[in-house]
Formats: sequence, C-alpha cells, structure tokens
Amino acid sequence: MGGGQNFPSREASKEKEIVLCTLPWPEERAKKGIEELKKEFKNVDVHYFHSKYENGKVAAIDVPEDVMKRASYLATLFWLPPSPSCIPNVKVIQFFSAGTNHVAKHPIYTDSKIPLCSANGVHGPQIAEWVIMMDLVQSHNYVNLWELQKKKEWKQGAGMQVSDRVGKRVGILGYGSIGRQVARVAKAMGMDVIAYTASPRNTPESKKDRGYIVPGTGDPDGIFPSAWYSGTRKEDVHEFLKQEIDLLVVAVPLTEVTTHFLSTDEFELLHKSKSRRAGTYVANIARGQCIDQEALITALEKGQISGAALDVTDCEPLPADDPLWNAPNVLITPHVSGSSDVYADRAFQVLIENIKREKSGGTLVNEVNRKRGY
Amino acid sequence: MGGGQNFPSREASKEKEIVLCTLPWPEERAKKGIEELKKEFKNVDVHYFHSKYENGKVAAIDVPEDVMKRASYLATLFWLPPSPSCIPNVKVIQFFSAGTNHVAKHPIYTDSKIPLCSANGVHGPQIAEWVIMMDLVQSHNYVNLWELQKKKEWKQGAGMQVSDRVGKRVGILGYGSIGRQVARVAKAMGMDVIAYTASPRNTPESKKDRGYIVPGTGDPDGIFPSAWYSGTRKEDVHEFLKQEIDLLVVAVPLTEVTTHFLSTDEFELLHKSKSRRAGTYVANIARGQCIDQEALITALEKGQISGAALDVTDCEPLPADDPLWNAPNVLITPHVSGSSDVYADRAFQVLIENIKREKSGGTLVNEVNRKRGY
Repeated sequence: MGGGQNFPSREASKEKEIVLCTLPWPEERAKKGIEELKKEFKNVDVHYFHSKYENGKVAAIDVPEDVMKRASYLATLFWLPPSPSCIPNVKVIQFFSAGTNHVAKHPIYTDSKIPLCSANGVHGPQIAEWVIMMDLVQSHNYVNLWELQKKKEWKQGAGMQVSDRVGKRVGILGYGSIGRQVARVAKAMGMDVIAYTASPRNTPESKKDRGYIVPGTGDPDGIFPSAWYSGTRKEDVHEFLKQEIDLLVVAVPLTEVTTHFLSTDEFELLHKSKSRRAGTYVANIARGQCIDQEALITALEKGQISGAALDVTDCEPLPADDPLWNAPNVLITPHVSGSSDVYADRAFQVLIENIKREKSGGTLVNEVNRKRGY
Repeated sequence: MGGGQNFPSREASKEKEIVLCTLPWPEERAKKGIEELKKEFKNVDVHYFHSKYENGKVAAIDVPEDVMKRASYLATLFWLPPSPSCIPNVKVIQFFSAGTNHVAKHPIYTDSKIPLCSANGVHGPQIAEWVIMMDLVQSHNYVNLWELQKKKEWKQGAGMQVSDRVGKRVGILGYGSIGRQVARVAKAMGMDVIAYTASPRNTPESKKDRGYIVPGTGDPDGIFPSAWYSGTRKEDVHEFLKQEIDLLVVAVPLTEVTTHFLSTDEFELLHKSKSRRAGTYVANIARGQCIDQEALITALEKGQISGAALDVTDCEPLPADDPLWNAPNVLITPHVSGSSDVYADRAFQVLIENIKREKSGGTLVNEVNRKRGY
C-alpha cells in the first residue's frame, strides 16, 4: 500500500449494513420506500430482488450467498432462504404481509429466534374501504343498478328501499388494525360498533392498538366499540354472535383456533339472533379458512344470512367449478382488498420504524408471537 | 238540547287540527310516522292520501274540499292544491323533498306567504353513502371485479393498484346536510375535506348547520373542512375548483346561479389543477341541471376529469339514446340516492319538529327562503 500515512477513514472502514429486500414489485415501484430508507439511515445499503409468485409458487431468485450472509435486515413478502444458517446476521425479518401463517412451517419460523415482524396496519385503510364498499354495494343494491346502466335503462325500482346504515350494527370479529378502521368509518356513517378479541380488553390501556397505524386512521385508543366481547371458547364467540349484528366483519388472524371459526353452529346462531330487517351480512377479509366454506354455502342457500362478501376463499384461486360461485347473494373478489398503490411505501414505513427500534434497543412494532401465530 | 246540564267538555268541543298528508307511499308505509305524530299531538287528526307520480305527472288525488279548507298542516312531496285559497288555514307546508324547486312556479310558492319547509337533512346519510360507495366503486375498480365474478374468473389484476382514499381531497360544492355527512365519512377514511358555500362562513356560529340533522351524523358545527371557500362570482367558484380536488361532490341546490355551475370553463380548470395521480372524479347528487351535460360529456371524452358518478341527469328519465350513456368512465343511477327504507319515518320527524315549533312560536326548521330558492 505504498508509503505515507494511509489510515482508512472511520466511515470508509465501517462496512455498510445490508437491507436485503425480496419483494414482489419491480424495484422501480419500491423507489420511494428505498429512498426514505436511505435518507433515514446513511450507513445502509439496499440489495433489492424482485421476488415473483408464479403458478402458486414462489419463483426462485438469485440472492448471492454472501449477501445473505452479510445482511442485517430482511424485507420480504414470501421468499425466505432455506434455513436460518443462511442469514446468520439478520436482526429482524420484516414481512410485507399482515400475516405470517404462510411461513409458519418454515425452519426460520420453527427453529430460529430471529424476530419476525408483520406489516400489520398498512392494510387498514384499503381493506376497510373494501368492507365499507361491499356493505354499501349490497345494501344499495348497486350491482343491479350497474346492470341497468349497461342496458341504458332508467328504472328506479332497483334503487328504492335501500336500507341505509344509520343505526345498524357492525360486529367486528378481530379488532385489529383493519377492524379498527372499519369501525372508524362505520361510526361516521351512524352505525353502532361492537368488537370481539381473543383476550379481554377491560382497561383503557388494554384497548389500545399497539401495532403500526396509518396516521389519521383506525382506533388507536379503542374508543369506538359500544361493547367489547372476548374469550376463545365457543360460547364466548357465540355470545358475540348473538348481538343482532347487521354486518359481521371477519378480521381475525388465521390460527388453529380461528380455523372454521364460522361454521354450521355459528350461521344458525346468526340466523336465530338476526336483526329485524334482514339477516347478517358477512364480510371476510381475513383468510378463507376462517370460514367453513361448505357451511357458508348452506347458510346462503338457506337464507340464514343475508349474503356474504368474500375477498378470500378456502383455496385460492377459487376454481371455476367451485360451488361457492353459484351460492346466492355472494360477492367474491380475488384477494385484492389489501392492494393499494401506496402499499409498498407504507410497508417501508414499518421497516424503517423497526430498524430504528432495533438500533435503539426498543420494542419492535408488529413482532409476531410465534406461539400465538400472529 | 233537552233539559239538564249539557255542557260539552272542552276537549270534545275543540275541533281536532287536521294534518293533511299527500305522500307517495301507501298509508301503511307511513304508519310509523303517523303513529309518532299522533303520540306527540293528542289533538291532531291525520287525513292521508296516497299521491302518485305517474308518467311524469302528479296523478290527481281526491282530497275533499272541506279537508283542504280545514287543514292546519300540509305534508306533501309534489302535490299542491291549485291555489292558496284552497288551504286558507294551513300554517305550514312541510315538503318531504330536499328541494322545492319543482313547485317554484306554483301560485302557492309565488303568491302566498304560507311557510314552506323542506325535508332537508333526511337525505344526508343515504346520499352520503351513495357518494362514498360510488367513489369506492371507481377507485377500487369494483365494476370490473363484478364482471370477473360473473365469469367465475379469479384474476387479481383488476383489483390491483387501487388508489386508496387516505390523503386524498374531497371538495364539497354546497356544504349542506348531504355534504356534511360526506365530510364526516370521508374524514374518517383519512381524506382531507374542503368546503364551498355561497355565503362566507368565517365565524364558528356561521359554520353551524341550522337545518334538520339525523342524530349522530353530519357536521353540526362545521369542523371537518380544512378550508372553506365562498362567493357566488365565477372567480370565487374557480378558486375552489383550483384546489387539486380528487373527489368533487356537487351538492348545491338548483337555483339560477347554480344552473350549469360546472361547464366547459370549470372542467378545463379541474383538468389544469388536477391532483397528481389522476383527474378529479365528479359526483352529482344535486340536480342534473347543475352540470352542463354537453360540457361534461366533452370533459369525459377528453379525459379532463377521471370520471363521473351521476344520480341525476339533465332530463330524467335519461332517454336510452342520450349520448351521456356512452361517455367514458361514467356511472349513472336513476335518481335513487335519496331513497331509504326509513325515509318516511325521518321526514315525519321534521314535520313533528315543525308542528312543535309552529305551536310554540319558534323558528321553523328548514324554512325555504322563496327569493333565494332554498
């Protein structure tokens, strides 16, 4: 290295920390988030890989072994390296999805202690909008109005006798970030809100939302519900379902307990305790498996509930010959409610927050409790 | 009559006051309202006539002359007796519609001083729901999702890249009861709200809603707008339209000033000042004539605005061969947004309130200023 003084500067000698991103968008679409990340942390290098999901499988991506080895943070949607030993230096894995059940059997989940964080919260606004939209499409009979428009027919009958939402009751099964934003909007529409959570929330402190919240949305302090139900026993859930619910929003994480959370017994219960005007309208934005789909079809056919809006189904894509398509009063969308053109930007906000907290030794936001499953 | 004391009791001697109802529903549908009316005022008799609107005309109804002569209150939607002299004792005419422009040329409007009250306020919730629904149907691309469902196709593309409402701006042209409820819901969805009214509202007092408000809804104190524009000159309205509005809600009463309130100049202005992502989406729930329909079609064709949701059109029913049906990005419903299965019940609440106020000598709610036109 020649003579003279040649002390590398402290800055240059310090190797940059690597944030490894394996995300489902072209890098261009994540540009804003990456820029904010680099602005926030000067000493960070981003290695970005476009990780696609094709034909029901995560397509292989070519992440060099040394990048995996050196990475301090991993931001991903579904891709994971084969084993924890591939990423010995990763301090936090930030998922860009609300749940992590899709990786619950992966060795990194089962055999490592790397903190896993979800992007819980970034979906609140758009999924709440989907729920409100579907409830309105149903109650205002919009689909029929659209069909009339296509025929250029001006027939008022289809839009009459709308049951507006004032005084109706929304029951939110799983009062997380999505349910809380549904509550905020429903309340503004004049609806009554009741909430269900697995664990009791009897104190103001326990009612708070501790996850990531899109500023200006949600129910940070848990003030919207007029009543709050809890408990994981069947009778606890049944007590909640008896409350003459007009709109039931399924927003629980998928766990063993919540698999087939709504089945024959529950639909019968909803039927018996149905509100005066019509039955309960069920909206599922959680996971298809939270509802026993066969029981749902039966409930729809028997008219035990007034209808269902489903953004998730049990087995996706839902095959063209699945009987669910033919069930009466069902609206199905192909698992799109969480989509938003600012999705990536918002998820990067959670990642930035978690890198900050990790560096300062604080509690991570949205850290998954592996045992509980969310 | 005969011997002995025979003083009629004060109660019996006092003739009951007549509330003459000429309403567009069978009496059965108004039952709840009539019952509440009778419960509130023991000394009132209701004479109910089902007044239909058929083939674009108010069908004749057979109201006996003496009932008209003796009536103290008239509750109507569109029927009126031929002249003020037919109803010499009517103290208040309670319209069950939001506007009274449909009777503005009737002698009772032009030549009498009988107080006319609108049912302004009872439409707030359901019309606000219509606006929010249409804005979501547009922004979440729901119509395409519905078309896919019909084909039993699970294609996520149609629901991706949704532009959710957080941080978007809703501009409310006419901050009355409907606009205020749109504001309440939009605010809960994370939107920014700006308002326009003809007269300035610079003091907290002037920002208040003095009309009938469905409890728990609206913006009684005018607190939701982040900015408030006013003035009836073209440049005043233009100043408002320049504010990068994502959703423009037309909710002004139809008057001479508001006829063709949005025309070529205004659409060009919206285009120039359009928000970054897309153009302005225009929702009209006022009257078709508030928008210059030819200019609207041109604006849609030129892409000067991102689309329009119209519950009202210039000339209703809109003929099947009207070019508006073919305009791009337009959603049309047949003037149904004000419909609600509790509409009659709510309008009776306004009637009851006004009878109370008339009896106690108070200021009527929703009294129409004949000169101003609303």
